[in-house]
Amino acid sequence: MARDTGRRGGRRGQGERRPAAGLKQLDWVLPENPYDPIKVLRDDQVEMITDTAFRILEEVGMDFLHSEAREILAKAGARVEPGSQRVYLDRGLVKEALASAPSSFTLHARNPAHNLEIGGRRIVFGSVGSAPNSSDMDGGRRPGNYRDYKNFLRLTQAFNIVHFVAGYPVEPVDLHPATRHLDALRDCLTLTDKAFHAYSLGRARILDGLEIVRIGHGMTETELAAKPCLFTIVNTSSPLRLDGPMIEGIIEMARRNQVVIITPFTLSGAMSPATVAGALAQQHAEAMAGMAFTQMVNPGAPVIYGGFTSNVDMKSGAPAFGTPEYSRAALAGGQLARHLGIPYRSSNANAANCVDAQAAYESQMSIWGAVMGHANFMMHGAGWLEGGLCASFEKFVLDVEMLQMMTEFLRPLEVSEDSIGLEAIREVGPGGHFFGAAHTLERYETAFYDPILSDWRNFENWQDGGSETATQRANRLYKSVLEDFTPPPLDPAIKDELDDFVARRTAEGGAEAA
Amino acid sequence: MARDTGRRGGRRGQGERRPAAGLKQLDWVLPENPYDPIKVLRDDQVEMITDTAFRILEEVGMDFLHSEAREILAKAGARVEPGSQRVYLDRGLVKEALASAPSSFTLHARNPAHNLEIGGRRIVFGSVGSAPNSSDMDGGRRPGNYRDYKNFLRLTQAFNIVHFVAGYPVEPVDLHPATRHLDALRDCLTLTDKAFHAYSLGRARILDGLEIVRIGHGMTETELAAKPCLFTIVNTSSPLRLDGPMIEGIIEMARRNQVVIITPFTLSGAMSPATVAGALAQQHAEAMAGMAFTQMVNPGAPVIYGGFTSNVDMKSGAPAFGTPEYSRAALAGGQLARHLGIPYRSSNANAANCVDAQAAYESQMSIWGAVMGHANFMMHGAGWLEGGLCASFEKFVLDVEMLQMMTEFLRPLEVSEDSIGLEAIREVGPGGHFFGAAHTLERYETAFYDPILSDWRNFENWQDGGSETATQRANRLYKSVLEDFTPPPLDPAIKDELDDFVARRTAEGGAEAA
Repeated sequence: MARDTGRRGGRRGQGERRPAAGLKQLDWVLPENPYDPIKVLRDDQVEMITDTAFRILEEVGMDFLHSEAREILAKAGARVEPGSQRVYLDRGLVKEALASAPSSFTLHARNPAHNLEIGGRRIVFGSVGSAPNSSDMDGGRRPGNYRDYKNFLRLTQAFNIVHFVAGYPVEPVDLHPATRHLDALRDCLTLTDKAFHAYSLGRARILDGLEIVRIGHGMTETELAAKPCLFTIVNTSSPLRLDGPMIEGIIEMARRNQVVIITPFTLSGAMSPATVAGALAQQHAEAMAGMAFTQMVNPGAPVIYGGFTSNVDMKSGAPAFGTPEYSRAALAGGQLARHLGIPYRSSNANAANCVDAQAAYESQMSIWGAVMGHANFMMHGAGWLEGGLCASFEKFVLDVEMLQMMTEFLRPLEVSEDSIGLEAIREVGPGGHFFGAAHTLERYETAFYDPILSDWRNFENWQDGGSETATQRANRLYKSVLEDFTPPPLDPAIKDELDDFVARRTAEGGAEAA
Repeated sequence: MARDTGRRGGRRGQGERRPAAGLKQLDWVLPENPYDPIKVLRDDQVEMITDTAFRILEEVGMDFLHSEAREILAKAGARVEPGSQRVYLDRGLVKEALASAPSSFTLHARNPAHNLEIGGRRIVFGSVGSAPNSSDMDGGRRPGNYRDYKNFLRLTQAFNIVHFVAGYPVEPVDLHPATRHLDALRDCLTLTDKAFHAYSLGRARILDGLEIVRIGHGMTETELAAKPCLFTIVNTSSPLRLDGPMIEGIIEMARRNQVVIITPFTLSGAMSPATVAGALAQQHAEAMAGMAFTQMVNPGAPVIYGGFTSNVDMKSGAPAFGTPEYSRAALAGGQLARHLGIPYRSSNANAANCVDAQAAYESQMSIWGAVMGHANFMMHGAGWLEGGLCASFEKFVLDVEMLQMMTEFLRPLEVSEDSIGLEAIREVGPGGHFFGAAHTLERYETAFYDPILSDWRNFENWQDGGSETATQRANRLYKSVLEDFTPPPLDPAIKDELDDFVARRTAEGGAEAA
């Protein structure tokens, strides 16, 4: 992280400066959290939840809906109930398997300047992923489509604070389901040069994804197996079930040393007990089982502990996000992941139906939970709305602002004779002002965070300027970023190989033919 | 704090249940923070800032614009520059004076159930204070007026999470300046039964305030001096100056053992150096000087360390709030106050011009800074907009929701066999759901935070319901609360005595005649 002074404008992060013309923003930087995490669980409570999670795996068991998975588990020493999908995992077995999971690793991007260091005190932010709908103020809400899909990729590339593509930002439902993954993943390599995600929706799709990323990086299969370049989110079908297509994703990704993120979908009151403690115990059981399985497939394969525990509205069953329960679960999830020594994934979630104050405060509750829970990997960092049912262009910009602010918040304060400026205080003296002080003028350009969205004009000037809300300003901003967009450079030979692969697999029928 | 289960509906806090008919809200509770504070300063940085603050008071000095103050200071051992207002305070003298300041105390309300315990891990939230304008969606923005003033008092009384009246929520500029304080402070006692503030705008006004609170509590002067019942905010005129009217407030309030909150107005880049470290050092110097002065007036008088450091937009000079710099300063201020063992005041601040996403995220940055900085006393908790230039009715409701959420966030998680519900997980088993489980049904009503403003319906239902933003919902909610409002009971004899006092002082010309 850069220091307190001379950072914006002149500041350089770990990578190069992004070229998006005219866009005022933070340089590329992987934020590192200098503050201790907020602990919402005492150590004995971490132990009790851990013990319960083990008892769940030992006594209740978990269903693995794939025979190959059950064979791998049985071979590793798990007890597979004959004639059923139920698997019982002893705590000794789980601990032994998890011992090989790395505590940190590099997720490689096509552009090495955009490689992500995952683990420790670092946190990286991703785009929204997997929304079935998209919206902006001009066109309203509509089913996800290929045009919006590509525009979200462009925004992801343009904003430095969005470090990776977290799945399809919105589902391009106008592309055929059998070949959608081919076009969509190729676009991740042509419209961005950042790390991205492939869906674990059966063996054929994930193998295509692996091949596309191999081609995109210009590597051999052996080289790919030495470098995590792709990640996949595996959601358990809570409670206590892993579906077949997800299992195939785990197997193929882990075998090739690619990143698997096991995220239990433990909505408290629906798919897990109606208490945060109960939901956490179940989350921990499912996460440990899934992660242990990755290590049985390939010891040492990179894996991330996904925390997604939230609660439902008990009156309607509607999922809620960014609630007080959510924030505490996000912080507690970090404690549980650190207890295992495995990197932690959280999200920037909210349940608002439009980009209003609720969208902002629920997202803030999620962001603070993730950041102060020492999450290492934030899914849905920019653009998530409606509990994930909509990707919003205005919310994308709002989130970029909030993530930039948190990044600045994580910069350690510089406390030195120079920064304190006792001489300036002496020079100005009682009753003066600091506008013209040398100490101020030296720092004029870079003293404070310079927002992209916040409007600090006084009311009269703001009114004269059209009384725009933050959402209206975000609308203008996202469109201007798209107008200025230039795709990142890509070796034409790689581009040709990618196109050939996509054309061939499309001709073969895509995932249908697998 | 109540436990994880059975809290809402059936939950009772330290006080009684508020009577506001039909209003779904948290019971009255003084939140206590179970989590460790976020430390943005290392111990050696706290020492360096402290040392610089002492050097400022020793070498640069501070102007006290009142001869009585300079006499008190000189008598206590400070060096007063002859023929000037400049006072130099040695660190030994400051430390000795601050040693008598209490680390915690009770701020008494007219209704004892609304007494506030100030200090330790507790945090209490106040209304907006001192805005010159007010606004709502129906009437737009207008100069502060008596009607809006009273309505903000009613909202302050109606919402349990707003623990005190933090000054005039909006300035009733249609009341004559000489007698405004008489009517306004009487209303604090008739429209609310919560603790409130009197302005340090010269001796006459603060003495009237003290008399009004004495009458309101039905006490003698001796009884009042034994019980802090009133507080006053004293802003330094940064840099390094205390004005005469403020000094008279300190003297009269501290003499009578009432609460003085010393809040330096250290906007970084304008009234203090353009670095957070420099602004903090100056804040610390001014706060220590002001607080030491209260103890010279009356050792043991209750005092609070006010942190208000933020930054300006260096391009325009406009003040900004809820910035990354602001959050770090709020957290650091808590460290500096705890270093002295004195309760800490922070704020819920933002610079937005309307109740939009910016208002929410800037407020969240302020609230998290205050709460995780272990502030004990939050000014401007509900209703503050435009950097304090406007009190908004819709923002009031938005803030109530955000403060309630933080209060829930601060409730310690219950982790027990019962709450975890292993038996429920066993009963439901892999692939089931928890909606009908006995463990869920037992907790149906009270499992999770029940919002007053957040709308968790799905998009279609939300759209059918009129597609209201959170701000539009807040507008409806504040009006319905005002419609249902009943003033708290007040002994008619006290009411008569209050009215007589106000009538007499008004006839005398109010503060003009002092």
